[in-house]
Amino acid sequence: MPVQAASRVAALKNIATRLRIDSVRSTSEAGSGHPSSCASAAELVAALFFSEMRYDPRDPKNPDNDRFVLSKGHAAPILYAAWAEAGIITRDETLNLRKFDSDLEGHPTPRLPWVDVATGSLGQGLCAAVGIALNARRIGSEYRTYVLMGDGETAEGSVWESAHAAPHHKLDNLVAITDVNALGQAGPTQWQHDMEAYAVKWRAFDWHTIVIDGHDMAAILAALDEAHRTKGRPTMILAKTIKGKNIPFIEGKNGWHGKPLKKGEEMQRALDELEKQFVPEDEPVATPELPRSSARKDPSGPISLDPPSYKLGDTVATREAYGDALAKLGAKDIRVVALDADVKNSTFSDKFEQRVGERFYENYIAEQVMIGAAMGLAARGAIPFPSTFAAFLTRAYDFIRMAAISNLNIKMAGSHAGVSIGEDGPSQMALEDLAMMRAQPNIAVLYPCDAVSTERLIAKMANHKGPMYMRTSRPKTPVIYGPNETFEVGGLKVLRESGNDVATVIGAGITVFEALKAHDDLKAKGTAIRVIDLYSLQPIDAATLLRCAKETNGRLITVEDHYASGGIGDAVASAVASAGFTVKRLAVRDIPRSGKPEELVDHYGISARHIVNAVRA
Amino acid sequence: MPVQAASRVAALKNIATRLRIDSVRSTSEAGSGHPSSCASAAELVAALFFSEMRYDPRDPKNPDNDRFVLSKGHAAPILYAAWAEAGIITRDETLNLRKFDSDLEGHPTPRLPWVDVATGSLGQGLCAAVGIALNARRIGSEYRTYVLMGDGETAEGSVWESAHAAPHHKLDNLVAITDVNALGQAGPTQWQHDMEAYAVKWRAFDWHTIVIDGHDMAAILAALDEAHRTKGRPTMILAKTIKGKNIPFIEGKNGWHGKPLKKGEEMQRALDELEKQFVPEDEPVATPELPRSSARKDPSGPISLDPPSYKLGDTVATREAYGDALAKLGAKDIRVVALDADVKNSTFSDKFEQRVGERFYENYIAEQVMIGAAMGLAARGAIPFPSTFAAFLTRAYDFIRMAAISNLNIKMAGSHAGVSIGEDGPSQMALEDLAMMRAQPNIAVLYPCDAVSTERLIAKMANHKGPMYMRTSRPKTPVIYGPNETFEVGGLKVLRESGNDVATVIGAGITVFEALKAHDDLKAKGTAIRVIDLYSLQPIDAATLLRCAKETNGRLITVEDHYASGGIGDAVASAVASAGFTVKRLAVRDIPRSGKPEELVDHYGISARHIVNAVRA
Repeated sequence: MPVQAASRVAALKNIATRLRIDSVRSTSEAGSGHPSSCASAAELVAALFFSEMRYDPRDPKNPDNDRFVLSKGHAAPILYAAWAEAGIITRDETLNLRKFDSDLEGHPTPRLPWVDVATGSLGQGLCAAVGIALNARRIGSEYRTYVLMGDGETAEGSVWESAHAAPHHKLDNLVAITDVNALGQAGPTQWQHDMEAYAVKWRAFDWHTIVIDGHDMAAILAALDEAHRTKGRPTMILAKTIKGKNIPFIEGKNGWHGKPLKKGEEMQRALDELEKQFVPEDEPVATPELPRSSARKDPSGPISLDPPSYKLGDTVATREAYGDALAKLGAKDIRVVALDADVKNSTFSDKFEQRVGERFYENYIAEQVMIGAAMGLAARGAIPFPSTFAAFLTRAYDFIRMAAISNLNIKMAGSHAGVSIGEDGPSQMALEDLAMMRAQPNIAVLYPCDAVSTERLIAKMANHKGPMYMRTSRPKTPVIYGPNETFEVGGLKVLRESGNDVATVIGAGITVFEALKAHDDLKAKGTAIRVIDLYSLQPIDAATLLRCAKETNGRLITVEDHYASGGIGDAVASAVASAGFTVKRLAVRDIPRSGKPEELVDHYGISARHIVNAVRA
Repeated sequence: MPVQAASRVAALKNIATRLRIDSVRSTSEAGSGHPSSCASAAELVAALFFSEMRYDPRDPKNPDNDRFVLSKGHAAPILYAAWAEAGIITRDETLNLRKFDSDLEGHPTPRLPWVDVATGSLGQGLCAAVGIALNARRIGSEYRTYVLMGDGETAEGSVWESAHAAPHHKLDNLVAITDVNALGQAGPTQWQHDMEAYAVKWRAFDWHTIVIDGHDMAAILAALDEAHRTKGRPTMILAKTIKGKNIPFIEGKNGWHGKPLKKGEEMQRALDELEKQFVPEDEPVATPELPRSSARKDPSGPISLDPPSYKLGDTVATREAYGDALAKLGAKDIRVVALDADVKNSTFSDKFEQRVGERFYENYIAEQVMIGAAMGLAARGAIPFPSTFAAFLTRAYDFIRMAAISNLNIKMAGSHAGVSIGEDGPSQMALEDLAMMRAQPNIAVLYPCDAVSTERLIAKMANHKGPMYMRTSRPKTPVIYGPNETFEVGGLKVLRESGNDVATVIGAGITVFEALKAHDDLKAKGTAIRVIDLYSLQPIDAATLLRCAKETNGRLITVEDHYASGGIGDAVASAVASAGFTVKRLAVRDIPRSGKPEELVDHYGISARHIVNAVRA
């Protein structure tokens, strides 16, 4: 331990005591919360915020500030207490914990400027931290990333995805600390206080691993110092702690998870005990050390691409157009990064890798850390495009949910949508991805049908703030838009229109071509229909849909390579309901099976033939 | 190696050659598929099916058959080839691989009687195998469970959830084999052929771990024998293999993932090479050894519960009624099992644990293995009820998707739905669970509002075949149904009805009580409304909804503690669309925040006040 740090031990101990006091007070005032989970982490948080981390408490936006992720988000009160101690908020403000009009929520969210990613769904913090640490490399900053995890959450598989990813990326700017207090919500944690059971696993995953007493301030400082000296791989500090530490009547006791001390006598008893624990200080703790300015400044403003080079009638899969567009974007702007989960040659994100390999992150078959790392990257200014088969994004739905809560600027893409993938069968077919994404109110959902609209919309995604999703298809489809056609998030294209259309057929992706075929078949027999390419499902152009409904006898027919719930049918129905219009939905209604794409598209009721029948019905 | 097995080596080698030949033939015929991934596993599969496993090839239903899970589902052709070798199907049938009218799909599904769970989404097989192995204990069978995994899929976090769960449950009847062929889809796998990188991890997770050459038949047999002798923990056999083994021109080459040999010259070249590899046999392989009958026979037929003991006006949270009902069910029938992810004292599944602890499986904070193990248990005749906070079921959405594809009899329950949980904030609030579950066409979705309907519906869940989901709430709600009231999957209750209702208000869960309050408020001012408790969202009672729509001026108002997409509003809208009715939806439309439950219910627009306004609009 450096001499300077050693002289701070007493002062840091007193900070830990004040953090405990504030955590008890705020949770008692709120009448809910997790004081016992705060108490186990008090020395760790004190050491991080007042000895280890470099940050400017007056400038949360400083790109070189060290980053802290509270993966055990239920310990939020001690994070808020640390901010109060640092002068970021007032001590009085901490008493607004969990109130409706305060941003000091039960679990931290990026509504608070010092929070990068919302936590509270356990096992996500380390995944995000991988992305935050990768971003330091991207912008050339010396900032370091610290994560505080609970021991219970290390049962989550996502933790082991990041356990693999961080050493793979050689992230020696990443330090994780596990607060091993041995008690979960419902009882003892999986390995309790068997520190060796933790250590052997982290070492096996190639982390520099240090086991300490998490209440021994000198040991904490020494471990953090050792982490600084560790090159080429991340450090895991396994801190043996006691839940409820230093509040004697709850210390190490089961049954005190998520339970505040009752305001009044019970709280006062705890505070009296804590007040007794202050020690004389040799040297007052200075304000946190400021970061060194070293980051390369990210460009600001929109990224523009030249018009696509596809020609009308070319046949190109939208997944391939995605890869091409992504590579172009990446070459234009250092904010753009791409993440893969061992399918880059199917999603065509390998085109990005070939062009800008230094901003391409391979996650192997691990979708949770792919999305989690994208969340961390987005939180620090990158524009990440994680992509895999759309079906496998379901693996990361909890991360996507939390990315929505955080309103992060991530740009997800899922390929191989629907039964039109063919022979591989249902395990590889995404038929619920639109439902899953649309359920989140702030995720924009795009679903282009051709290469031009794909490329144009990828550029829009890069420039549109907030979480977004693009669905792409496996089969090749003809280019139907000219290179100067424009596309908007929230737009659609009316592809066929006449004064005597008897119905409006609304498709997206591969069903646009089924609708066009139905149009031609019907036209040959004297019936006119309107055809819409609904390339933006959320937001949705309700005004144009309503106009078309009115102009085509109120007859709207949707057709989608997706299950019947939550996709195009529901999106359109919801958009036109207020005007009293309803929708006839053609969608996949059974669990599908293997077969040829065209065979499946027809069998599951979404081919041109079925559209023709629906128009005639 | 036992003498008997040793004498079989030559014969087993020849079986491996035949399995390679069949895998090449079937994929070439299909024009797609993964012959190279089959070739690496040929000796492993031959040893398992023709020396190690006990099963009756004529009786897939035998409860004592050893079980095999092909976690690397893309190697399906070699599984089908093994069945052909065992006489379960004909060799000619294997040539129907991936055809629409054959059940020999691109990845195996339980349409095939020898398949327990659909695979093809990597990283799931071992989780299911944990459940299958637990089931052997439940029914007192000596059957053993074998899983064949790929090396690429061990990057999935779910694998490490099961890596922890299996030794935790001391499953020495479980043997996993990793086919370490070092090549994934897009390139080398994460640890390639560094066998020690794998071994150190599995040992750290407390598996008996054996490293072998996966093409050395004697070594395979010896490892399987060692697994038999290993007590108290599962065995992991790490088999170093070559992708495309024994087809010299593709052996160990990148770029041959998921690529068949071209029918004609290319295929013939491979077959010629393989044909040369047959060796003289000392002793022909006998038919597989038959299982010993040892299983306790599961009861058949429905489970009935006595009427609930709640009294009208009692206030009981539906999550607590869930726990009570589950405990009653468990005491009645040994098929019923419960699984938790460290929240048993919040979901009240601890009531089950207290009553039937031997059929309660704690998974710690690991939702994927909780659902995966439930899938395995369901596949073998158990009626599993996995439960956690509904928000955290999003963590297992890919498993839920695959459970739907498998049409497994799992009974999921999610508590703490919606903004009505209050102060904990959005990370703990499920607001997309109904959308996520309803998207799957064969998952039944229930959402009771009081204790009586919860208990009645839990009994229905146990007796209704197929995947199901129940959503429960955190707050206490009054009991509104008498003990003899009956509830059906696909039913609803009209709670308030008069001849002059101006609108029908449809709620479920906590919003039923907001609707009842709105009813009373409006009634006091002379306006009558109809109120429906839509406790079954999928299937849905469209007939009654249509009748009510007709009787109440076509005015349907839904109100739900869920985001606007995919929940009650969309379910009702879809059910009544064909008759031209539309729905006014009250739902949560923004990312919520912490606050008091009643404060949030009102702020997000789903309280009685908002219903009254909607009725008056």
